[in-house]
Amino acid sequence: MKRILLDCDPGIDDALAIALAHGSPELEVVGLTTVAGNVGLEHTTPNALRLAEFYGMDVPVAAGAQRPLVRPRHTASTVHGSTGLGDVVLPEAKRQPHPEHAVDYIVDTVSASPGEISLVAVGPLTNIALALRKEPRITEWVREFVIMGGSYTRGNVTPAAEFNIGADPEAASVVFEAPWRTVVFGLDLTHQARASAEVRERFTGLGRLQHELLAPCLDFYGSNRQYRELGPAIHDACAVAYVISPELFTLQEARIDVETSGRFTSGMTVTDFASEETNNAVVATALDQRGFWDLVTDAFERVARTMPAAPSA
Amino acid sequence: MKRILLDCDPGIDDALAIALAHGSPELEVVGLTTVAGNVGLEHTTPNALRLAEFYGMDVPVAAGAQRPLVRPRHTASTVHGSTGLGDVVLPEAKRQPHPEHAVDYIVDTVSASPGEISLVAVGPLTNIALALRKEPRITEWVREFVIMGGSYTRGNVTPAAEFNIGADPEAASVVFEAPWRTVVFGLDLTHQARASAEVRERFTGLGRLQHELLAPCLDFYGSNRQYRELGPAIHDACAVAYVISPELFTLQEARIDVETSGRFTSGMTVTDFASEETNNAVVATALDQRGFWDLVTDAFERVARTMPAAPSA
Amino acid sequence: MKRILLDCDPGIDDALAIALAHGSPELEVVGLTTVAGNVGLEHTTPNALRLAEFYGMDVPVAAGAQRPLVRPRHTASTVHGSTGLGDVVLPEAKRQPHPEHAVDYIVDTVSASPGEISLVAVGPLTNIALALRKEPRITEWVREFVIMGGSYTRGNVTPAAEFNIGADPEAASVVFEAPWRTVVFGLDLTHQARASAEVRERFTGLGRLQHELLAPCLDFYGSNRQYRELGPAIHDACAVAYVISPELFTLQEARIDVETSGRFTSGMTVTDFASEETNNAVVATALDQRGFWDLVTDAFERVARTMPAAPSA
Amino acid sequence: MKRILLDCDPGIDDALAIALAHGSPELEVVGLTTVAGNVGLEHTTPNALRLAEFYGMDVPVAAGAQRPLVRPRHTASTVHGSTGLGDVVLPEAKRQPHPEHAVDYIVDTVSASPGEISLVAVGPLTNIALALRKEPRITEWVREFVIMGGSYTRGNVTPAAEFNIGADPEAASVVFEAPWRTVVFGLDLTHQARASAEVRERFTGLGRLQHELLAPCLDFYGSNRQYRELGPAIHDACAVAYVISPELFTLQEARIDVETSGRFTSGMTVTDFASEETNNAVVATALDQRGFWDLVTDAFERVARTMPAAPSA
Repeated sequence: MKRILLDCDPGIDDALAIALAHGSPELEVVGLTTVAGNVGLEHTTPNALRLAEFYGMDVPVAAGAQRPLVRPRHTASTVHGSTGLGDVVLPEAKRQPHPEHAVDYIVDTVSASPGEISLVAVGPLTNIALALRKEPRITEWVREFVIMGGSYTRGNVTPAAEFNIGADPEAASVVFEAPWRTVVFGLDLTHQARASAEVRERFTGLGRLQHELLAPCLDFYGSNRQYRELGPAIHDACAVAYVISPELFTLQEARIDVETSGRFTSGMTVTDFASEETNNAVVATALDQRGFWDLVTDAFERVARTMPAAPSA
Repeated sequence: MKRILLDCDPGIDDALAIALAHGSPELEVVGLTTVAGNVGLEHTTPNALRLAEFYGMDVPVAAGAQRPLVRPRHTASTVHGSTGLGDVVLPEAKRQPHPEHAVDYIVDTVSASPGEISLVAVGPLTNIALALRKEPRITEWVREFVIMGGSYTRGNVTPAAEFNIGADPEAASVVFEAPWRTVVFGLDLTHQARASAEVRERFTGLGRLQHELLAPCLDFYGSNRQYRELGPAIHDACAVAYVISPELFTLQEARIDVETSGRFTSGMTVTDFASEETNNAVVATALDQRGFWDLVTDAFERVARTMPAAPSA
Repeated sequence: MKRILLDCDPGIDDALAIALAHGSPELEVVGLTTVAGNVGLEHTTPNALRLAEFYGMDVPVAAGAQRPLVRPRHTASTVHGSTGLGDVVLPEAKRQPHPEHAVDYIVDTVSASPGEISLVAVGPLTNIALALRKEPRITEWVREFVIMGGSYTRGNVTPAAEFNIGADPEAASVVFEAPWRTVVFGLDLTHQARASAEVRERFTGLGRLQHELLAPCLDFYGSNRQYRELGPAIHDACAVAYVISPELFTLQEARIDVETSGRFTSGMTVTDFASEETNNAVVATALDQRGFWDLVTDAFERVARTMPAAPSA
Repeated sequence: MKRILLDCDPGIDDALAIALAHGSPELEVVGLTTVAGNVGLEHTTPNALRLAEFYGMDVPVAAGAQRPLVRPRHTASTVHGSTGLGDVVLPEAKRQPHPEHAVDYIVDTVSASPGEISLVAVGPLTNIALALRKEPRITEWVREFVIMGGSYTRGNVTPAAEFNIGADPEAASVVFEAPWRTVVFGLDLTHQARASAEVRERFTGLGRLQHELLAPCLDFYGSNRQYRELGPAIHDACAVAYVISPELFTLQEARIDVETSGRFTSGMTVTDFASEETNNAVVATALDQRGFWDLVTDAFERVARTMPAAPSA
């Protein structure tokens, strides 16, 4: 049983990544921390709380950074909807956020269990960068550090930058320069994880999970121009899937530098596969798609079976 | 009685700024927070603790950031000596640092007394930037925010950048873009505060304070090439003096932007005095030198009178 | 019969591009202009002169810029050999360079035949940028403007930059911002034009052309690590092939901005295929490989047949 | 008798610099070359031609670059008026511009008289940069190279950049990196050359020169907010005065790097007076004001005496 601490900005694909983590019998989710990203923190924290209750998770949710480390905030609300889950509005959560700030929750959690926590970040890296500056030893304490972010060919918010890195390039720079080996799930990989019609067919028996969340979210998400042809890419779930089943991925070591000063390239993860002695990252390049969707479908089925009944009206 | 929270990186002129704050009958020092700057945090925290005991201050000292927000660390040990106080080695402190991180100490202190604390930062602005990102409301809670840093003409670590800003430009950028009006004591002002031979003459009767700290520190500090002619500039004390006696300074409103991406100008505080509606700073431009040194000498005399006797050997 | 003015930095693939242009019955080469690039101008100009005589071309060769528009010079001599043609040393040329500077030769040539000249640049864009600044109307006078350079995914001199653009990003920026529609053959395309073993088999009957130039050059060129697996990419010939047979290429309109200020991305051609109204380029994305090599082989045969006999020893 | 080639963008202070050069018995003006700067080339070239005829100069005027080396064009027409000479409209010139481009005129002129020509540039450095790229040996051929541009404290178009450098930072970068020792008259110096009321009093007897040019131009120029208090700074004339009487100036060696990539500092001349072995410039820091205005007044008197009579109406 692996313990995962998930830093996220739900966000549609975050919602699916949380479901995957919760539904996997091999993972224990020890916390969700939130960050401004796909939408503002005023949405990502409530979304995390509501998703946890919807899925029936008993997990602390700690709120983090309201804006990037240095730059102004940019969201992706055209992709995820103004509140982050497309048109879906989940019931208000009964629980409050954890009293600690996400940064402290991260530091305290990994320091309490050295070598045991898989820290997975699927939003902008602001919380992680702040945690590194407050307590550099988290690099020694985590079991592994995994992100969804970046690209080694082309971006999505600009031709050069993927959203999570482009939203906070300085934080990403801090993260990649820290003395750990970041495991990276960028667009080149996550664009292989498309919720195609065939994939979505497999979700049809999932009851409330399907009707109230997956279907409307994926309809909304998939209506983006970039996703219309092949189906929406379920980016964040890839990083979680790696923690469960690393054998699903082809991995390649690389040196990643984050551009922070370019005029047209800010937020690009400049990836050198020939760097060798200065490698600081492990980059996922290919996905076992069948294995991935089997994993996701299994986990979703487990969530669907165990989630609470609909609140009586 | 004004309450001051001093974020510092002692450092010789920090040591004098702390003495000024402690010796002023109009100030209560509610805390010292430390940051890497003139020397590393492994020296600035012990120095702050030792100075507090040497001066007889009963004040919490909270340790902060070990390195800049984004960039690698650069120190000024050629100016301040390898341990930060020239050749002076004060006795080890009996007290331990405050258990909180400096960032939390700052947030907790100003939030506990809204409108009452003068937050004064005389080192790189890393702690302040981290505090702003963790709790943006500190801008509403401080009584005033004052820094030593920058220049509107020429720098000292480079032709464009002053040390405190040049050491952490991204942190400075965060600080100047926050919704408060930073009061700025840059090189143009602090180079008017020179510990000339005549000034130092006034310190001769100050006993242990003079013999064990002021004299050897100022000898060391003044031996820097830049200070040989006119005497060393006591930069940090200017920011503290402002909290005590703002009338000693000529002030001018301005817009300050911090260059973070220049090849030769990184860390420059680009200061526009004609910006008007976008002003974010108040810049000190001229010093009442007689008044300043009277203030400093009075405070030093009070420290000298009240500090503990030398520990018996 | 199309008239082509070829700005080049021979260079091995330049040598092949010149042969293709000369050997094509549909092209008249009205001039070769040289620039520092693969190797210094002290080699590219003699190489152009010698290649012209080796191939039996009666064409002016005008020498151009010795170094990039703004930056210091970088060569690619590890790829092309210290003198630019691998280990091949052609006999000294009998002709002298044209008395005009390349920039003036370009301006004069295109202004003398408005709408008739295909200007093709297969080295760093220094000469073209200088010509644009000296005589902006060349954009109106050329028939078309075609380059080998850039990439819309990954570079070769850095993970972000292709050599020709990375060697002079400011010149490339000038070129792409000029009011013409640059036709771009970048690495994504040219890596489809590999002189594989099978391709090279077709050159075996080409006599002196094969024995004295193609074979030794391609042996040298193909020994580069990046080319070992699939064979060397004959970049520059693609741009010339387009002038002869545009139907060999799939083309896509795009907006290209050249990064000049990035720390890790300088020289990147940031390519936006969704830019629409601000498009400034036509980017080749796919190659009819069979058609391309037929074209090249035919041209090389014509060169082999018509080139002068070996000078008697 | 020194021979001066003046690259300029008239411009009010350019007009005065031309008069100073023409009126000095120690100078022979061998050419005026024009560049876009204070106003566009469509004004600076006619202005140079008209000023030459107004002053009675028999000198070639060669038109140069229409826009900066890399960036878009910015003018200073609020300072110099929409046509460059405030409200003054001089009669149309009878002569045509020299047939050569300014860049060629510069190269040809200095190459024809090695060691004899003082090349003085008082506008953006586009022509000089282009000349350096076309013929690097001009650095060996000029007698000296003198510019008006830059600042070692504060700029005028931005807090960091002076107009001539800020208008074309890449060209300035090329110029300062060339192997010659640029003699620099920046704002710190030229702000000492103010056409105060007292100075202007001395021009009252200068007839048509005064009534038709100096008085209206200086009225217009002096009405700028920056000049209202102390009188307008006659920037460009300082560079010409240096060629005539270098002893009027205090000079200091320095290393100057031009910022081209800063977000707020682009076009700044970053000046290091402690650089020693890498010095590339000689910077004027102090002016003998009395001597300077004597020189200018004498020259203006000579122009006034020798200029053609007014054309009969």
